[in-house]
Amino acid sequence: MTLTNVLLTVAYDGTNYAGWQRQDNAVAVQQRLEEALTETLNQPIKVAGASRTDAGVHALGQRAAFAVEHMPIPIEKLPQVINSHLPEGIAVQAAQLVSEDFNPRFDTRAKTYCYQMHNTIYRNPLLSRYSAYAPYPMLDAERMSQAAAHFVGTHDFAAFCATGSSAKTTERTIFFCEVERGEKDSLIKMTVNGDGFLYNMVRIIAGTVLYAGIGKLSPQDIPDIIASKDRSKAGKTMPPEGLTLVEVMYDEEKY
Amino acid sequence: MTLTNVLLTVAYDGTNYAGWQRQDNAVAVQQRLEEALTETLNQPIKVAGASRTDAGVHALGQRAAFAVEHMPIPIEKLPQVINSHLPEGIAVQAAQLVSEDFNPRFDTRAKTYCYQMHNTIYRNPLLSRYSAYAPYPMLDAERMSQAAAHFVGTHDFAAFCATGSSAKTTERTIFFCEVERGEKDSLIKMTVNGDGFLYNMVRIIAGTVLYAGIGKLSPQDIPDIIASKDRSKAGKTMPPEGLTLVEVMYDEEKY
Repeated sequence: MTLTNVLLTVAYDGTNYAGWQRQDNAVAVQQRLEEALTETLNQPIKVAGASRTDAGVHALGQRAAFAVEHMPIPIEKLPQVINSHLPEGIAVQAAQLVSEDFNPRFDTRAKTYCYQMHNTIYRNPLLSRYSAYAPYPMLDAERMSQAAAHFVGTHDFAAFCATGSSAKTTERTIFFCEVERGEKDSLIKMTVNGDGFLYNMVRIIAGTVLYAGIGKLSPQDIPDIIASKDRSKAGKTMPPEGLTLVEVMYDEEKY
Repeated sequence: MTLTNVLLTVAYDGTNYAGWQRQDNAVAVQQRLEEALTETLNQPIKVAGASRTDAGVHALGQRAAFAVEHMPIPIEKLPQVINSHLPEGIAVQAAQLVSEDFNPRFDTRAKTYCYQMHNTIYRNPLLSRYSAYAPYPMLDAERMSQAAAHFVGTHDFAAFCATGSSAKTTERTIFFCEVERGEKDSLIKMTVNGDGFLYNMVRIIAGTVLYAGIGKLSPQDIPDIIASKDRSKAGKTMPPEGLTLVEVMYDEEKY
């Protein structure tokens, strides 16, 4: 029996979910997606996600793969039909057929995350759902950019990993890490792309870049913090609402 | 007895509110603000708003004034203290003292509204809270800009007013009306500034501009639609989530 393998691109507002991964006592995005697929395709469906985003973290380009024996809907109609079974905060953005041995997690070449902060005197309720409130009058985005640049390269990121991680190695490669400040709306956006990320790594990098922006450390300190492999030398773990998984990239031949 | 008159600038996420104005059977922003002020100032407070935003409509720069006999907190500390009593979706952005005869509604010189749409193939859950989903593959932002420009000037806007309005006259002046398309995120933003707006006027203008963008009408039709004073000639009323009251402006000497 041949199986049809499908890869979905999924966007979600993580505010009201206990993260991506299905769990017993709280509602996860994976559960809602599997329920919608099971209804849509009229057979029990389990999905494998590319990234286990934490509670409260958002996604524009999460990936999730599943296999079906019988595919009752043309692939190009699939997103629209699944979306009609999903709650408002989750929506499939694309669907494509992939080879039988494709694995959305292990075949990942790179991922892009965005971490947003809003730098206003008072909390802005129109920004606070998707960005962390950073009420520092002297926040310097140029220093944040300089700090971000020091993360690029292959490093042991042990200093930027929450305890409790099960990663075999803490070496990762960051391909780019940039900070830009919006003109009007006081939003500061850090975009980081790398071959993989440790537990809470982007949120700790964001907290360290923020510390450079408020003068708590210097951009030139970053190489030493990385070299220390000491979590206590890095900045604080920023809250989940500022983090969005933007894109998961694969090599063409992996599909 | 002299009263202290205070003018607040208030931002809110309107998603879960029945609009600005206090009402009997649903929670309005005005009610939450009055509750927070009553707690903060330890005396019963009623506020007067500049604009009665509808259910689901957001604000960055709503204005609300109130009078107190005794002001126990310095004006510069007021926003932070009030905010600690407000729910997450509402936050005071500024507070200032104003003259005794200042009226936040009748002294308004101009207001700026922004109407946002997201033009994507599938609903984007990270954009749909603050923008209307506009799934038109051929949406032409340039034609929308041309249509928007025709609204500028002093006109009888009867064709752009929902029935049930109690306005004495339907003549209003639009100072500017512009459409811009974001580079990355498929957001189309209409910004309109005028001396006053009829019931649902911005949402009907947005629907008419959208019709120009999808070819349902031509930008050159706008003057005739205005001249017709016929609501049925204009576009549809766009949904509330795309609308934000950005700013309410006063003449300096009014304070």
